[in-house]
Amino acid sequence: MRILYHLPLSPFSRKVRLVLAEKRLPFELRVEKVWERRAEYLDLNPAGTVPTLIEENGLVIPDSGVICEYLDEAYPDLPLLGRTLAERVEIRRLVAWFDGKFAAEVTRNLLGEKHMKRMFGRGNPDGAALRTGYTAVKYHLEFVGWLSETRRWLAGASMSLADFAAAAQLSALDYIGDLDWTISPAARDWYARMKSRPSFRGVLADRVPGVTPPEHYADLDF
Amino acid sequence: MRILYHLPLSPFSRKVRLVLAEKRLPFELRVEKVWERRAEYLDLNPAGTVPTLIEENGLVIPDSGVICEYLDEAYPDLPLLGRTLAERVEIRRLVAWFDGKFAAEVTRNLLGEKHMKRMFGRGNPDGAALRTGYTAVKYHLEFVGWLSETRRWLAGASMSLADFAAAAQLSALDYIGDLDWTISPAARDWYARMKSRPSFRGVLADRVPGVTPPEHYADLDF
Repeated sequence: MRILYHLPLSPFSRKVRLVLAEKRLPFELRVEKVWERRAEYLDLNPAGTVPTLIEENGLVIPDSGVICEYLDEAYPDLPLLGRTLAERVEIRRLVAWFDGKFAAEVTRNLLGEKHMKRMFGRGNPDGAALRTGYTAVKYHLEFVGWLSETRRWLAGASMSLADFAAAAQLSALDYIGDLDWTISPAARDWYARMKSRPSFRGVLADRVPGVTPPEHYADLDF
Repeated sequence: MRILYHLPLSPFSRKVRLVLAEKRLPFELRVEKVWERRAEYLDLNPAGTVPTLIEENGLVIPDSGVICEYLDEAYPDLPLLGRTLAERVEIRRLVAWFDGKFAAEVTRNLLGEKHMKRMFGRGNPDGAALRTGYTAVKYHLEFVGWLSETRRWLAGASMSLADFAAAAQLSALDYIGDLDWTISPAARDWYARMKSRPSFRGVLADRVPGVTPPEHYADLDF
């Protein structure tokens, strides 16, 4: 059986879980407490990050970006990276936006300060980081809303990895109650569509000890 | 003519310049002072980062990762991302290592603190960041040395994007005199091979006002 090492609230792990589920590839989840820097795990992935995917043939694939490129090449029946060169550029541009800019400006400042810092034993949230995160999340939610108002899916006419990269980040922030969906009804409508996909069930069923999600977290009609 | 918006010491811009030159794709360089947040540039690339490539047909491609994936798909004659699934995983894993981990632990702490911070008008280098960077660079140089001792090129038997991602980061640090090549003779030998490639000439000819590179910077036999 395929194995995915992950953390429940890691948006990068969530992106891969969504893609595996969309492609109907069965997998077993294993929680990896990366802050423990377990030697056997560092042998698999010297970067020490989650996720890492172990394929059934033994191939070890670290890094969510590397995993998603691999999955689209190895299992192309449901292509998530587009067909034309221009589509592929736009999808990868948005994936880089959410994995890079959104993660650095929003997720790291909110989920990182409130949750991951505690896991890593690095003390209390920094007030300036939280303020930066709360300012940035509004602008980013409006951007998601603008994309979903002007296109059927975030990167264009077809559902793509861009939707899963965005939904993965947003779902982790939604779990800790840091998303005010009234900021952008269009973003909320798009996210409601994402949430109602069968691939999302696992992510919505996640529960982390000590952190209770808001009531609307797993509600498909929020 | 193809246009590449860049900054001379941006390792991500350098990676794309090396790949374009290896693939013998002519391009015109335009310096983009990203800290000025020029409106016309933000229209091209809302993330506001360099590099951004404008293709001859008008296609706008931001983000060095997106550009390199695009270039390997659009111009596959010299493939830089490997052939088998396992080769592609290993190449992309190392690209993610150098673009992500190396850049965050070394380049941001050294080039970022000493050079980019000044460009952005964000004050003086932070001593703790510099110490972190100098500690990390040793470990990373040893890693490059270990890879080049155990393989012909960093990701395996063939030259790949992993070599250019690593060389781009190292070349920018070498420009500011922050690489002690005596740490790893194997890393130095690999870098000497990279430097002597015709694709490297442009990068070695770069000069930035106010920052003079050490004598060995452009020396092929350093």
